[in-house]
Amino acid sequence: MGSDGGLLAPVWAGTRAEAITSDAAWLRAMLEAEAALARAQARLELIPSEAAAAIDRTAATLVLDPADLARRARQSANPVVPLVADLRRAVPGAASSVHRGATSQDILDSAAMLVATRAIRGIVGDLSAIMRDLCELAERHRDTVMAARTLGQQAVPTTFGLKAAGWLAGLMRARARLRELRLPAQLGGAAGTLAAFAERAGAGTALLLAEVFAEEIGLAAPPMPWHAERSPVTELGAALAATARALGKPATDIVLMAQTEVGEVAESSAGSSSAMPQKRNPALSVLVRSAAFQVPAYAQVLGQVGEHERAAGAWQAEWLPLREALRLTGGAAETAAELVAGLRVFPDRMRANAELTGGRLLAERLAAHLDRKALEEALSGDGPLEGHAELLDPAAYLGAAPELVDRILATYREQP
Amino acid sequence: MGSDGGLLAPVWAGTRAEAITSDAAWLRAMLEAEAALARAQARLELIPSEAAAAIDRTAATLVLDPADLARRARQSANPVVPLVADLRRAVPGAASSVHRGATSQDILDSAAMLVATRAIRGIVGDLSAIMRDLCELAERHRDTVMAARTLGQQAVPTTFGLKAAGWLAGLMRARARLRELRLPAQLGGAAGTLAAFAERAGAGTALLLAEVFAEEIGLAAPPMPWHAERSPVTELGAALAATARALGKPATDIVLMAQTEVGEVAESSAGSSSAMPQKRNPALSVLVRSAAFQVPAYAQVLGQVGEHERAAGAWQAEWLPLREALRLTGGAAETAAELVAGLRVFPDRMRANAELTGGRLLAERLAAHLDRKALEEALSGDGPLEGHAELLDPAAYLGAAPELVDRILATYREQP
Amino acid sequence: MGSDGGLLAPVWAGTRAEAITSDAAWLRAMLEAEAALARAQARLELIPSEAAAAIDRTAATLVLDPADLARRARQSANPVVPLVADLRRAVPGAASSVHRGATSQDILDSAAMLVATRAIRGIVGDLSAIMRDLCELAERHRDTVMAARTLGQQAVPTTFGLKAAGWLAGLMRARARLRELRLPAQLGGAAGTLAAFAERAGAGTALLLAEVFAEEIGLAAPPMPWHAERSPVTELGAALAATARALGKPATDIVLMAQTEVGEVAESSAGSSSAMPQKRNPALSVLVRSAAFQVPAYAQVLGQVGEHERAAGAWQAEWLPLREALRLTGGAAETAAELVAGLRVFPDRMRANAELTGGRLLAERLAAHLDRKALEEALSGDGPLEGHAELLDPAAYLGAAPELVDRILATYREQP
Amino acid sequence: MGSDGGLLAPVWAGTRAEAITSDAAWLRAMLEAEAALARAQARLELIPSEAAAAIDRTAATLVLDPADLARRARQSANPVVPLVADLRRAVPGAASSVHRGATSQDILDSAAMLVATRAIRGIVGDLSAIMRDLCELAERHRDTVMAARTLGQQAVPTTFGLKAAGWLAGLMRARARLRELRLPAQLGGAAGTLAAFAERAGAGTALLLAEVFAEEIGLAAPPMPWHAERSPVTELGAALAATARALGKPATDIVLMAQTEVGEVAESSAGSSSAMPQKRNPALSVLVRSAAFQVPAYAQVLGQVGEHERAAGAWQAEWLPLREALRLTGGAAETAAELVAGLRVFPDRMRANAELTGGRLLAERLAAHLDRKALEEALSGDGPLEGHAELLDPAAYLGAAPELVDRILATYREQP
Repeated sequence: MGSDGGLLAPVWAGTRAEAITSDAAWLRAMLEAEAALARAQARLELIPSEAAAAIDRTAATLVLDPADLARRARQSANPVVPLVADLRRAVPGAASSVHRGATSQDILDSAAMLVATRAIRGIVGDLSAIMRDLCELAERHRDTVMAARTLGQQAVPTTFGLKAAGWLAGLMRARARLRELRLPAQLGGAAGTLAAFAERAGAGTALLLAEVFAEEIGLAAPPMPWHAERSPVTELGAALAATARALGKPATDIVLMAQTEVGEVAESSAGSSSAMPQKRNPALSVLVRSAAFQVPAYAQVLGQVGEHERAAGAWQAEWLPLREALRLTGGAAETAAELVAGLRVFPDRMRANAELTGGRLLAERLAAHLDRKALEEALSGDGPLEGHAELLDPAAYLGAAPELVDRILATYREQP
Repeated sequence: MGSDGGLLAPVWAGTRAEAITSDAAWLRAMLEAEAALARAQARLELIPSEAAAAIDRTAATLVLDPADLARRARQSANPVVPLVADLRRAVPGAASSVHRGATSQDILDSAAMLVATRAIRGIVGDLSAIMRDLCELAERHRDTVMAARTLGQQAVPTTFGLKAAGWLAGLMRARARLRELRLPAQLGGAAGTLAAFAERAGAGTALLLAEVFAEEIGLAAPPMPWHAERSPVTELGAALAATARALGKPATDIVLMAQTEVGEVAESSAGSSSAMPQKRNPALSVLVRSAAFQVPAYAQVLGQVGEHERAAGAWQAEWLPLREALRLTGGAAETAAELVAGLRVFPDRMRANAELTGGRLLAERLAAHLDRKALEEALSGDGPLEGHAELLDPAAYLGAAPELVDRILATYREQP
Repeated sequence: MGSDGGLLAPVWAGTRAEAITSDAAWLRAMLEAEAALARAQARLELIPSEAAAAIDRTAATLVLDPADLARRARQSANPVVPLVADLRRAVPGAASSVHRGATSQDILDSAAMLVATRAIRGIVGDLSAIMRDLCELAERHRDTVMAARTLGQQAVPTTFGLKAAGWLAGLMRARARLRELRLPAQLGGAAGTLAAFAERAGAGTALLLAEVFAEEIGLAAPPMPWHAERSPVTELGAALAATARALGKPATDIVLMAQTEVGEVAESSAGSSSAMPQKRNPALSVLVRSAAFQVPAYAQVLGQVGEHERAAGAWQAEWLPLREALRLTGGAAETAAELVAGLRVFPDRMRANAELTGGRLLAERLAAHLDRKALEEALSGDGPLEGHAELLDPAAYLGAAPELVDRILATYREQP
Repeated sequence: MGSDGGLLAPVWAGTRAEAITSDAAWLRAMLEAEAALARAQARLELIPSEAAAAIDRTAATLVLDPADLARRARQSANPVVPLVADLRRAVPGAASSVHRGATSQDILDSAAMLVATRAIRGIVGDLSAIMRDLCELAERHRDTVMAARTLGQQAVPTTFGLKAAGWLAGLMRARARLRELRLPAQLGGAAGTLAAFAERAGAGTALLLAEVFAEEIGLAAPPMPWHAERSPVTELGAALAATARALGKPATDIVLMAQTEVGEVAESSAGSSSAMPQKRNPALSVLVRSAAFQVPAYAQVLGQVGEHERAAGAWQAEWLPLREALRLTGGAAETAAELVAGLRVFPDRMRANAELTGGRLLAERLAAHLDRKALEEALSGDGPLEGHAELLDPAAYLGAAPELVDRILATYREQP
């Protein structure tokens, strides 16, 4: 029984990402790694196939207490040592075949990639759902006029469709990066030379074993052991940080558009306040943003340069922030899916805001049509602009906004 | 039951810091904050004293499921809203007095400071134990000769006592910063104006209430509500990061001194390896370093600039990294205490290493006594230096190392 | 001639902070450190006083090309080695007294603290100017009603005075931290034992020399050499990060209040846009925010744990981010002073926004006076609330906002 | 003339990367962007071709003072506004065609990508040179026995060839990521709708213009304007951080192997110390490490979530850390090329260290061949192991190390 759930992280509390990345799931993945190693060794006749079968069977059902393992992990600075001890005890007849030739990092890194693969599958699923909804939003609001804002100031007209399509474009890029990841299995033995395997079966078989192990565990076969070459972890972290930010973009814009004075969108069931029942808090957006603020910081801890064939601290520092980066991104994706699916859009308010400055939103257009003197005259005063009515319809100065929507949606639809 | 224990963080698995900062502890602190608020309001007659007594009693014993609260927290983006609902249900006769006039942030921020206070008390205790041991080490090895190393190269002689005293100096500074923290209670109502309190009792009483609340909860009374002025959190984070690094310094030096080729120290029960039973892994040092790599990254998330009277994401992003910074630093302190208490020191090896370069460790001294030509001649060749034997005793070129030890220990002993 | 000015950092371009932290200033500070060391050694008769005088005189006027030194610094990984060579060449008669007994880090760390001291003096001056203006703003607008906003939503009434006082409170705390810094001189010799000094004059004099050096250079005397105990740098970085964020808070609120739809404040000469002449860009606020986003990231690089008596990389990584943290914070302070001095405040707009929701800003107050049914009835519908007019004046529900202003200003006025 | 060169960053002082990313280079790139925009508009007949020719000619030769521009940039929070003013003044006859329809961010983002493209070209060149040298090293030392080390402890034998091949593998991955980057031009007009272009020529031509502009400036054509979708910057930052770390890996291992007690490698002209002439400081490695510590921190600032169609601070915060990330990585690459080209390798020392533990480096092998009791007996005592001589030759327990070298080199040679 762990000491923590999501009390301090409602963005992932109760989400699939929490379960996929829990201590229990991580422990399960380590056992799967041991089982896959045993099967792989049996396939290449490095251990008896009966032993592999026994290990496989036992690993699939063995129930261990993560907290107990965690405490015992302190002695060796990693949880695989006690795990292997327990697994050996559980298969007395095949004890010597358990973890044979492997090192703790082989199991922990491979398990981490397994957990990450599953978490990413969930994230990609949620991103795809969000993207479908954004596609629909962008299409429906292709021509819905609103004010574009730069540095917080109304700048020129745009459409809500283009805004939604921009969010979609960011998520398309994030999803593509997640899909490009080829998370690798790790197998190198004590220090990356596969020596204990080679000792029994020769170097060629040892190299082959690394590939068969990858196949058995369902991860990519890396060009070489990556115990000390952490680019798989760095790239995973970078992709998660990018995804969290891509999710944070619509959340940020929604918080701003939902401001009382702006009122252009609202969350479907705007969150309740403990003191002010009337407030329409953009709670889901706030949750997504809470993740977007955290993930890049955690990602930075991943893949720091370590010493020689195994880092004395930098590797061990990866586990927690990797879990948190996966989980926060996963929670943010699930939360953003709920957010986007229920988003309420108020085109009238958008239009009204676009007209708030009495035509000054069209100043760029005026500047293109009037000479300097006429422009200054037109913009002088505080009230609505007078004259030039034919130039002041925001819907007539959308530039290529609708066409950009079309283009982005076309790109989106071409994607698998 | 939470989804996580310390499987991925053996540095704090099973430590006091884990328990002090668990979801359950955080939840307990929130209930304590509600109880303290009720008592404070009763003292100033803002709510009936019977109601306060009922709330106090109920809060002390109410058992809630953190995971359930966490899930319900998603709707309002914070766990206090469902907590208040449950607490109200549990004291039906005093429901309207629960949380009266307060906002979620009042409770969450105050609870965070309460948890932090307790975690820091533990950290300071562990630091003090480490410092006692380092003091003894520094004293015992005041004159134990070893090579000082800069950029990885042997530079001049020093003493192991000075090295230990240097670690001590870093921890003294870290402990002083932790002790200087005056973690404040937070009470501001919906947006920091204390309006709902002032409405019932006037502005003066509302201001007084903030102080009485601080007294009741046992935290400092801040000059003003700090819901949007996050320096208490920033400073807490900075002090924890500094502490983690101060702990990381001995851990780093120990890893280096414990290298096979150096062999000057060893951990008492050097950690076991899953593949190589003979290795003497500096497991505790590695755990401490794993924390030192993480805490500064988490601290950076704390106290980011937020919007207006409550941030839409930056505040909510603080909770998880604050817990982790407290817990990792706490775990690192407890682990470092174990490390330092059991450290084995090998003065013979230190001496042997200092003599490894056949006198070249004394080159600076030679340079002060010989002219350029004589110096070059003396240093030429690869073997042990010949001649100048009177200048080549490392124990005779310790500079002020022993006296610096005395000075640092004197400063240490003067501290409370 | 350096390759960079502030083209990419308009927040500090042309500010005092740029000059104070330039390569030339840093070089000057290193020469001052060498001169102070010479004077200190002469005072304790470790070198001839004529030599010290010659060094002092030469160091004061020697003109070196930073870019040339920088290139030559690559060979030793620090710029002090070529600097010492050039200085020695410039005082041929006293060459052997230059830098005598010191190490590069002594000079570079001391110079860094000298530069930092000067930069901080400027920052504190700017903070004080900002605080005077905020004090005036807070006083003038003690009772100016505006909507407090949480998560972007109007919550309850507050006053602009309290908002300004809140900014002031954050800056008071930041200034206090900067003033508490006791930036130390650094003198330890090759590896912190002061051996080359002790060799000539004994350990006692060597220790005394460290104090005399601090006196001569005008920095604090540290308890021991801190070449490997980086808390001075960590704390400096943390104080700068906190200051940058304290400056970022008003900048952030101003950007939000200056939004076209909100319009409650404007910068005095709102920045011009290259495309839209009418926009009133909050350019100064944006510049301040650009610094607030950067400084915490740079501060995190400062004070990382290093190896043994001198880090092989972590120390050398400090120089650039330290300069940038000083300079960005300094530029942000000077920019914020300009911003606050010229801030235009529109109380009518604040009042109008507070009334935008037809009385719903007072929902908390209504909730305290009406039963649930009456409350729901009152809040139903979209138009202005009907009835309860006596409860709906925002100026009558300011809570302790004006009194909090008084209290903060009183605290401010008590400060030196 | 800028205020800074590389005095505080010897890792890039005087390198190509400094020049490629200087203020002057950045300014030049902005002028190139304006010229490319003019040519593109002329190609599509949005401006007269004579005007474009005049702008192109003038932009190519116009000399502006970056520091002056920087100061004037404060008013608009970006340097493009004064740049456009100066350029217009310089082509009086074509002033109205300068920057026509564009916004500052179009020019600055495009210029940044231009500078980045050039910096990356240099980095890739240096990486390729390093890789050639590492390939040779790996080949030559394919079978050179040394001790692999995990957590600082000797673990099992490996070869120096495999270590070098591991460095190579990391750099191959980094170079591949840099080459995969498709740095895009940016053209969106005031807020990403291309409105001012579309107003003159229709939406279709406006979209075409964005592509023609990309062609003219020599950057990729993005699917849509990315002013508010910062993945190009995030990915660039992530690739640079990964590269800096990939360079930091050999630098770190070299510092460790060059330790006095280890002595397995040395830099060709080991850096001089100001105090100890005999020290062989790994100065180049230290410089490379100084960059590896910084770049990830700066990269984290890039691509933060911004507001609406242009961020009020987050965008402006990108410029400085982007330059620094490019420059530090570039300097590190050039420095590492020098480091690797001159690396001196001492196979005898490697062998001697591998035998330092009297055979215990082969404990894993022993464990595979002996039963528990025999193993304990063999490993007992402190002296050299007795018996089992046939198992104790480190060269006979290299596992697949040589074959892994072959495989990595084969992969390397297949790369373009």
